[in-house]
Amino acid sequence: MAVYTDVSDEDIARFVAEYDIGKVVSFKGIAEGVENTNFLLHTDQAPFILTLYEKRVNPDDLPFFLGLMDHLSSKGLNCPTPIHGTDGVALRRLCGRPAAITSFLQGMSPRRVLPHHCAGLGDALAQFHLAGQDFDNYRANALSVKSWRPLFESCGNGADDIMPGLSAMIAAELDYLETNWPAKLPAGVIHADLFTDNVFFFPGQEEVSGLIDFYFACNDLLAYDIAICMNAWCFEPDNSFNVTKAQNLLAHYTRTRPLGADEIAALPVLARGSALRFLLTRLYDWINTPEGALVTPKDPREYISKLRFHQKVTSPAAYGIGDL
Amino acid sequence: MAVYTDVSDEDIARFVAEYDIGKVVSFKGIAEGVENTNFLLHTDQAPFILTLYEKRVNPDDLPFFLGLMDHLSSKGLNCPTPIHGTDGVALRRLCGRPAAITSFLQGMSPRRVLPHHCAGLGDALAQFHLAGQDFDNYRANALSVKSWRPLFESCGNGADDIMPGLSAMIAAELDYLETNWPAKLPAGVIHADLFTDNVFFFPGQEEVSGLIDFYFACNDLLAYDIAICMNAWCFEPDNSFNVTKAQNLLAHYTRTRPLGADEIAALPVLARGSALRFLLTRLYDWINTPEGALVTPKDPREYISKLRFHQKVTSPAAYGIGDL
Repeated sequence: MAVYTDVSDEDIARFVAEYDIGKVVSFKGIAEGVENTNFLLHTDQAPFILTLYEKRVNPDDLPFFLGLMDHLSSKGLNCPTPIHGTDGVALRRLCGRPAAITSFLQGMSPRRVLPHHCAGLGDALAQFHLAGQDFDNYRANALSVKSWRPLFESCGNGADDIMPGLSAMIAAELDYLETNWPAKLPAGVIHADLFTDNVFFFPGQEEVSGLIDFYFACNDLLAYDIAICMNAWCFEPDNSFNVTKAQNLLAHYTRTRPLGADEIAALPVLARGSALRFLLTRLYDWINTPEGALVTPKDPREYISKLRFHQKVTSPAAYGIGDL
Repeated sequence: MAVYTDVSDEDIARFVAEYDIGKVVSFKGIAEGVENTNFLLHTDQAPFILTLYEKRVNPDDLPFFLGLMDHLSSKGLNCPTPIHGTDGVALRRLCGRPAAITSFLQGMSPRRVLPHHCAGLGDALAQFHLAGQDFDNYRANALSVKSWRPLFESCGNGADDIMPGLSAMIAAELDYLETNWPAKLPAGVIHADLFTDNVFFFPGQEEVSGLIDFYFACNDLLAYDIAICMNAWCFEPDNSFNVTKAQNLLAHYTRTRPLGADEIAALPVLARGSALRFLLTRLYDWINTPEGALVTPKDPREYISKLRFHQKVTSPAAYGIGDL
């Protein structure tokens, strides 16, 4: 959670006047997202979300992200819809930062993941992948397999400070992944960060009410997005793997977008890659976050444990995919 | 700003089911209030605020605060109205803490105070004082003149660490205030913390759209509340005193609740007392906030400067009250 930029009441009134969404009646910083500043904005017509993009987001990528949300919304996917100003422009500036207003999405992210959430997630992820197929912009994955070795090298000896022997483990894993990474799987727009914070449900319901936070979205292997979700959703707090959750995720995904045999076979290596990607970025943040910073970095150790699990997996059956 | 307690989607759904306010459709931590955890809660009927009372609030005081908000709402004052559960109870428990849902108040606190805000504030403060006159609960001011010396003593040598000579200045001021504090002015329920964060306006409008955060409210001298507002609203960011703002505050206050000659005469000493009260609590927090804490303590020095201003005031005319 974070609110980085304070916006005055006059600034927000002036900004909202550039849209045809009524007059601002309330405006509160919300504890959502760690990369940007988010406000819940009520006008006399409806609630909206106002996002100010802070320095961790590359402004050159914003047209891709907002264009993607426009595209997905037009396809009927429940995600924040960028609101365009009366001049037609969605990406604007406020308080010296790029800024956009999007529609307000109902629902809540699950604080405790239950198996039914993973079923709904599978449906929503497949629907998202299908809806993105004819989006005609392209953004390379800045955190793809190619980027992991330089990211690891920039951490210096930091890995061994977290856990003795971790550097050697990561180096060996990089060798394995660079050799075995699948090249020819179906690709398209992936979310690339579909953690529980970014998926909304109504309490007790299986169906996803919406997806948010497309600020890591990029073009990559679709099945890699499934692997990211397996790591984010299917491990228990004690890091044990809940195969029922994975079964639900995969069964519901494939009923909307069937997986090829090559994609299924690649799941273990994709899961290892996804675990290493989050291990490395968390390691980097752990080393580079100054003491007393507003945002507490996430513990990289969680992903060491997940990586070890997938290293022992010899067949996608371990994820319950044999039951499809 | 702070969100101290995380509430699960299941907990909030269960909690909201104890009310007749519809089903929860959204639930976001908001950056409002530093003493409690606040959430903006949307049900399918309306937006609400959910507050979890953290340890800085004495649970024994909560019936006073919630009862006061009930009373003020019934008098037509725009303030959060406690929502009562289907069993009639407003003060409940959630996640091991006292918790209450209140109505959602439109408007925004001014980030930059303009003279017209002080006019609206004067009207609203007087209306609040009148509305509180027949509230029949009583809460002593835990931060009244009697408490300042023990508070100062608990700071040890902290004052001189902030500014050499500050201890002696405070000691002398305490002597002055204890001797000269007015005893017989009109008393009643005061807000006692009516800083800009706690007063909402619609952009560009003079009229206050609502008052919030009654968690310092207590029984004390009504004119002391005016003095607190003068300190909080009528100084510029460079600590110069804006007499136009004070004139607006006092003129608009008195048109709703005329001040007695004794109250007007007491304004300078009340303003000194108010400046010392916030100087002392900020000093205490400055000394006692651990490094790296979530909440940055406010700088006590601002109130040294305000105190010095009032020490030089020889007549209430300095506040523009001669023009009434």
